[in-house]
Amino acid sequence: MSKGDLTKEHIVAQAAPIFNRSGFAGTSLSELMAATGLQKGGIYRHFKSKEELAAAAFDHAWRRAWNARWSGIDKNAGAIGRLKQFVANFIDNRAELVPGGCPVLNTAVDSDDGNLALRDRARKALTRWIRRIEQIVSAGIASGEIRSNVDPRVAATILVATLEGALMIGRLQRSNLALEQAREYLIGFLEGLANAGRKEAPAVRSSKSLE
Amino acid sequence: MSKGDLTKEHIVAQAAPIFNRSGFAGTSLSELMAATGLQKGGIYRHFKSKEELAAAAFDHAWRRAWNARWSGIDKNAGAIGRLKQFVANFIDNRAELVPGGCPVLNTAVDSDDGNLALRDRARKALTRWIRRIEQIVSAGIASGEIRSNVDPRVAATILVATLEGALMIGRLQRSNLALEQAREYLIGFLEGLANAGRKEAPAVRSSKSLE
Repeated sequence: MSKGDLTKEHIVAQAAPIFNRSGFAGTSLSELMAATGLQKGGIYRHFKSKEELAAAAFDHAWRRAWNARWSGIDKNAGAIGRLKQFVANFIDNRAELVPGGCPVLNTAVDSDDGNLALRDRARKALTRWIRRIEQIVSAGIASGEIRSNVDPRVAATILVATLEGALMIGRLQRSNLALEQAREYLIGFLEGLANAGRKEAPAVRSSKSLE
Repeated sequence: MSKGDLTKEHIVAQAAPIFNRSGFAGTSLSELMAATGLQKGGIYRHFKSKEELAAAAFDHAWRRAWNARWSGIDKNAGAIGRLKQFVANFIDNRAELVPGGCPVLNTAVDSDDGNLALRDRARKALTRWIRRIEQIVSAGIASGEIRSNVDPRVAATILVATLEGALMIGRLQRSNLALEQAREYLIGFLEGLANAGRKEAPAVRSSKSLE
């Protein structure tokens, strides 16, 4: 890696938590300079614009989130086991994310009239994310593990929506409760997808820890 | 209503979409002046600070969201009918919200180091919202309509999380698809709470409109 590449990587790593916390419009050059220890010229020697730096910062933050959420997935034999691991990773590996939380949630809610290229990047990241879950569900249907009347796209959307919604609730409540409720509910949801699964509707159960 | 109260109401109504779209830090005095047609002194004669105006703007936006989401609820006899109406309202009455979308989602994701009094207000709004759903579920259990092994708090959290998460996905994708998938899924979820409900696990079904 050249010295220039190392500097570029350093800038992105330092900029990522700032953009992730403050949004595109909310991130100031002075914060970027303070975080990187570089002057304006030192930063913009490596990036054409704030837009380009924000996109690189998003990619960095998303790579971290992606790795945290899919870590150890392939150790699980079946589709349902993999998806349960994904749910556990989403909740338990949050400390591995770039500070500021989920970059897709943050970018989705960030001011609409901001950086359109950045929104497009976040949209594509979300689409790939839903698609990866969809593929695991489809593989589970193909192997006979999951019922054939399950729509893989719907299952994937519900998983992501429930987790991201619970993340938002927990962020406002400064509490893990909503995520723990989502975890337990989604385990029931995933078990309910099984061909050989329980025949009763998955109960919205309370666990001892939630009573 | 005094002239002063009318002016105050005018300021709040004009400020609400700006705060809702741009967040607390992202809202500038010049935008507030342009939207209200008032000078700085004209605005701050009615509000002690930007924090106080933002709190009043949140209350205004939340009242609109609350009314849109609970509209016509009591026309439904049972708990499950009421909750289905709530899901439909959440999705179908979005145009009645202050521009910028759900104020709770926006405030939750808005920069953490912003206005703490505003975050507290949003947190309380969310808590009351979850509690109202919880009460409907509890009433359904008391009347025998809903199974007694359903945890009302968990059911309420899952409803809100799934809808808010699908809203976020739809916002990024600029599409209604995730909300329509959430609608169909949540109808199955709500029917699955019924005592006399289907005994099979609610399928994650595809409807013709989603094929």
